[in-house]
Amino acid sequence: MDFELSEYHERLAKVKRSMAQKGLDVLVASDPSNMKWLTGYDGWSFYVHQGLIVALDRPEPIWWGRGMDANGAKLTTWLSPDSLRPYADDYVQNPAKHPMSHVASILREFGWLNKRVGAEHDNYWFTGRCLQVLEAELQAPTADATGLINWERLIKSPTEIAYLRQAAVVCRGVMEAATNAVRPGRLERDAAAAVYAACVKGVDGVPGDHPAIFPIMPSNERTTCAHLGWAPERIYQPDDLVLLELCGVHRRYHCPLSRTVYLGRPPRRLADLAAAVLEGVEAALAFVKPGVEAWEVEACWRSTVSKRGVVKPSRLGYSIGASYVPDWGERTVSLRPDDHTVLGPNMTFHLMPGIWEDDLGFESSEPFLVTETGCEPLMGFPRGILTPEL
Amino acid sequence: MDFELSEYHERLAKVKRSMAQKGLDVLVASDPSNMKWLTGYDGWSFYVHQGLIVALDRPEPIWWGRGMDANGAKLTTWLSPDSLRPYADDYVQNPAKHPMSHVASILREFGWLNKRVGAEHDNYWFTGRCLQVLEAELQAPTADATGLINWERLIKSPTEIAYLRQAAVVCRGVMEAATNAVRPGRLERDAAAAVYAACVKGVDGVPGDHPAIFPIMPSNERTTCAHLGWAPERIYQPDDLVLLELCGVHRRYHCPLSRTVYLGRPPRRLADLAAAVLEGVEAALAFVKPGVEAWEVEACWRSTVSKRGVVKPSRLGYSIGASYVPDWGERTVSLRPDDHTVLGPNMTFHLMPGIWEDDLGFESSEPFLVTETGCEPLMGFPRGILTPEL
Repeated sequence: MDFELSEYHERLAKVKRSMAQKGLDVLVASDPSNMKWLTGYDGWSFYVHQGLIVALDRPEPIWWGRGMDANGAKLTTWLSPDSLRPYADDYVQNPAKHPMSHVASILREFGWLNKRVGAEHDNYWFTGRCLQVLEAELQAPTADATGLINWERLIKSPTEIAYLRQAAVVCRGVMEAATNAVRPGRLERDAAAAVYAACVKGVDGVPGDHPAIFPIMPSNERTTCAHLGWAPERIYQPDDLVLLELCGVHRRYHCPLSRTVYLGRPPRRLADLAAAVLEGVEAALAFVKPGVEAWEVEACWRSTVSKRGVVKPSRLGYSIGASYVPDWGERTVSLRPDDHTVLGPNMTFHLMPGIWEDDLGFESSEPFLVTETGCEPLMGFPRGILTPEL
Repeated sequence: MDFELSEYHERLAKVKRSMAQKGLDVLVASDPSNMKWLTGYDGWSFYVHQGLIVALDRPEPIWWGRGMDANGAKLTTWLSPDSLRPYADDYVQNPAKHPMSHVASILREFGWLNKRVGAEHDNYWFTGRCLQVLEAELQAPTADATGLINWERLIKSPTEIAYLRQAAVVCRGVMEAATNAVRPGRLERDAAAAVYAACVKGVDGVPGDHPAIFPIMPSNERTTCAHLGWAPERIYQPDDLVLLELCGVHRRYHCPLSRTVYLGRPPRRLADLAAAVLEGVEAALAFVKPGVEAWEVEACWRSTVSKRGVVKPSRLGYSIGASYVPDWGERTVSLRPDDHTVLGPNMTFHLMPGIWEDDLGFESSEPFLVTETGCEPLMGFPRGILTPEL
């Protein structure tokens, strides 16, 4: 197990406290990162319906999932055998049967069918059909508990911070692999392969892990948007502009980092954009300390870069932690207007000031830990435009 | 673009025909593989809500998604600028605003709000909250159109089959990389890194791509379940049993393959299991031809392996094609009891007879193309237990 049993028990207690505050007796949770955080469960089985049931009146969560994955739950979680409730295989991708009926049968068995039940309504892994079937079985609406567990994950434990620091070590290796591979004459896909290999291998004896987002590494006109990968058949050329939004991973904890590479002497426009963004990053990081609110960090950034004519219409950052595909964000705090979350010690964020304009893009981000007095960047990687050809 | 414009138009016509048959005027589709298949859209932006709107009375689908991804839609799809409808960034992961309200505003603009609207109710990318918000905006229920597009993808075009054959070339390289790396004294994570690198690089000049499922490569007791990866800190030992469920990818088309490695002389029990499974695979492949039904293929397999005492309680296979995380299956046909789909030429399947028992597992699969007269395995990889140490 990646954590002491006592830490899992503390997490469960926090979740139950939040459930009680929100008037919930039972929580159906299917976000794989929440399953991991509460029980240790770790497998690529989320392509079929699975989840946990947390009930105020039961000491352990119940894992439910496909029969062929139950041994995986036995091997990777701290749950006792009686807490593993697999379903038969004909529930898989079958319009005539739905795994939420299996969940309802568990709720019935434990006398929870008439309790106040919540579910993660806006999570990838809880579909519209899940909602329909669960509510039809309950003959009652469910409460929206999207993010309930995620919010309890916001403040990181010492072990979690240690894993994030290891992820930062891996991230450094990933960024070095990328900047060594993005060179004129080399295939873009070979650079992507080097990034994947470094992320999974890790560096300096620190094991990596599989990334929750693929290597975002567009070149040239593809840098005008936020989420394109490499062009598999293309060879890097002199004066290519390449964005790198990559990550290091350790025991599912993600340390993301973005940087911009230019294969030659950067044009004035890009250099100006970089200078403005880096000034904004420095201002925002200097501003962060316990007690400030999420929106204030963004406002600080915005007032700095707007003086240089830079506009970023999208959020400046988000909370990070343990993740699975498709997202390394925690889906709670966003550094943007109207988010009044008060920052506190041992929260971790990705400050991600990506700029995507119609002719080019620029990215230079910083993952950071909120400390007792300010913040500590998790990486010490040079922030300016990387120019390996100069 | 990966396909001629005429092929995209044919696909759209097929989808519209199916919509009309099902009484739908408008379809809201958010499965990334359906978006790719209909428009070419290709980016890792599905971690926020996005999708297509297909309407019988409009020649082009409408792409909707996050503002920062609109340039990606411009670069990767055949859609005209008027068909790209991005939403503002404060719709992202914000309990107070939901992207389905943006979708409703598009429906309103085009006069589709009172039409018969369908959505992919049981797709990962259409959450319970999507359903609630969309139906609240429409003030009417939506029809379940889960799989409507996926079913139109079942019969592959010549270009798609060419891509699947390229994916099979990549898959061979991936399997060779894996079997070269799974050796006593080597780290499991280094083998996983070699697999990722081979999958993304490709082989023999054939580009690979990122896989929709991570390298499933458990060892020893971890082979008792279906979806565990490598153990990052473990070193392979003599007499290790290792399952490999991997894939080759080319332009998002997936050719999966599973095999079993034993680092020594396989024990009798494993060898007997392998012999039974391979007999079943041969019987099933010999049985496949146009006109047989999906359940019959599984019945043929089952009657063969049951004579040797092998029981597989899970489906024997599924349709394959273009995919994104978290699944390389097409989520339509399953080779299992009660699936009465009639097999026809140019359908492609992964025959995946994985056996996971409480002490060990065995896998040896075969991706195949249904031909005019029978079937053609896409790979020619040796099916028996791989024993690189003998």
